[in-house]
Amino acid sequence: MKRIEKIAIIGAGFMGGSLAKALRKKIPTLHISAYARSESSQSRLNKTGIFSKVDRDLEKIVSNADIVFLAAPVEVIIDYFKRIKPFLKNSAIVTDLGSSKKEICDAAKKSLPKSVCFVGAHPLAGSEKSGIESSRFDLYKDSLCIITAKNNSLAVKTITRLWQSVGAKVVFMDALTHDSMLSSISHLPHVLSFSLTDFVKKEYIKFSPASLKDLTRISNSHSEVWADILISNRKNVIKDINAFIKILKFYENILRKKDMSKIIRAIMRVNTKQKLIQ
Amino acid sequence: MKRIEKIAIIGAGFMGGSLAKALRKKIPTLHISAYARSESSQSRLNKTGIFSKVDRDLEKIVSNADIVFLAAPVEVIIDYFKRIKPFLKNSAIVTDLGSSKKEICDAAKKSLPKSVCFVGAHPLAGSEKSGIESSRFDLYKDSLCIITAKNNSLAVKTITRLWQSVGAKVVFMDALTHDSMLSSISHLPHVLSFSLTDFVKKEYIKFSPASLKDLTRISNSHSEVWADILISNRKNVIKDINAFIKILKFYENILRKKDMSKIIRAIMRVNTKQKLIQ
Repeated sequence: MKRIEKIAIIGAGFMGGSLAKALRKKIPTLHISAYARSESSQSRLNKTGIFSKVDRDLEKIVSNADIVFLAAPVEVIIDYFKRIKPFLKNSAIVTDLGSSKKEICDAAKKSLPKSVCFVGAHPLAGSEKSGIESSRFDLYKDSLCIITAKNNSLAVKTITRLWQSVGAKVVFMDALTHDSMLSSISHLPHVLSFSLTDFVKKEYIKFSPASLKDLTRISNSHSEVWADILISNRKNVIKDINAFIKILKFYENILRKKDMSKIIRAIMRVNTKQKLIQ
Repeated sequence: MKRIEKIAIIGAGFMGGSLAKALRKKIPTLHISAYARSESSQSRLNKTGIFSKVDRDLEKIVSNADIVFLAAPVEVIIDYFKRIKPFLKNSAIVTDLGSSKKEICDAAKKSLPKSVCFVGAHPLAGSEKSGIESSRFDLYKDSLCIITAKNNSLAVKTITRLWQSVGAKVVFMDALTHDSMLSSISHLPHVLSFSLTDFVKKEYIKFSPASLKDLTRISNSHSEVWADILISNRKNVIKDINAFIKILKFYENILRKKDMSKIIRAIMRVNTKQKLIQ
């Protein structure tokens, strides 16, 4: 593992802030600096007492860092690659916490200097909260962190150990598989929940059973965060929407035929698979 | 309210058994008889100690009853109308706990004698459990019971008071509205959950986030119960599947266009509505 003395966090909100809190607790001597976009955010970040330094000058935050963490929406991360490029020190590691990985990995390859190692990462932890005030030192305890690395370089080992040190179980996967999987286990479910909330007539809402509440819970997801996630992974999400429609059409079809035994068999199949998910 | 001394329950499982337990607690002197289809079910029902009488002879159960409760799948309830018809006493009330109401109300009108009053009812209480062993005296406490009555007859008043006496809030609604509403707040959500469980690849299941767990929880629903519910209300469910697909296509469309501001607005609209559902 590479010796790490200074890290920088760009986007110290719920996810980035939780990582900072966890690392501060684990490695009290670590120098953790945070970039603040505005005066008010600088004062909010200073108030937490977590950071060794908070600055609105990107160069001052980035230039000494052994690792730069980008914790922001996908489009914003991609934008930061260009902005941090002139300030990165040789052999720095750049890593991220973005929700879609293909666009980010492609942009990193294109925008970052060759002397820098990029390691894509996606900690699977709740994204419905936002802001440093909601951040928690134990957010990543017993969570999963997917690292989209193709090799076992020193940089990958370093980022892996850091995530493990805050309690995450690290899983390796290429960016394409990550995006395809996340679309199916998270992004499509969000679109389904949004669509169901759209679908239900207002006058029926007061009769909502537990089932409807379960299915619409994630409709409270942050609009800008999720618009970014869905757009950055739109190819997979669109493919999955259409695959899902085919399954709905299968149910429509067996209902039209009043095919009781086929419907019972379908639900029994679903019963068995559901136990694996819960 | 009509004076009620004897009631009969046909289908003393989770729902019917819970009603019997609640009424036994509320009105200890009430004569509650239960129909058993087999010797083993007769012995299970007797073991509960709730019932004044358990018999496998339908005539003995029905002929003295002031009220006959039918707690069974929709198709089974419809079948029982014909079977109990010869034994019903004059001015008996027949009522049910079925999940779809139009087919049941039509069948009651067709099959039951004119001297008998039918009152359709649907207590909205969890149907994922089954069997008298899971039944609970407090299942209907603070629940909703929909009564599909068009008048305010003595029979309707009697059934209303009985449901209120076990803690349910009674709401009146015609059968068509009931079925349309239930399709949209419960039956379609079940089809969505089943479809999503079908959709997710087995190798991704170990990465299931909370969102996927929320949406697939009701995929554990009882296969025969739900095949019956979906088929009995298939016209509404098919209509709703197609209306839902239109909404999915809307999301597909704004994703294809990468229309960030439209996606953000859509999710914000959903955020607001979601608060009313939870």
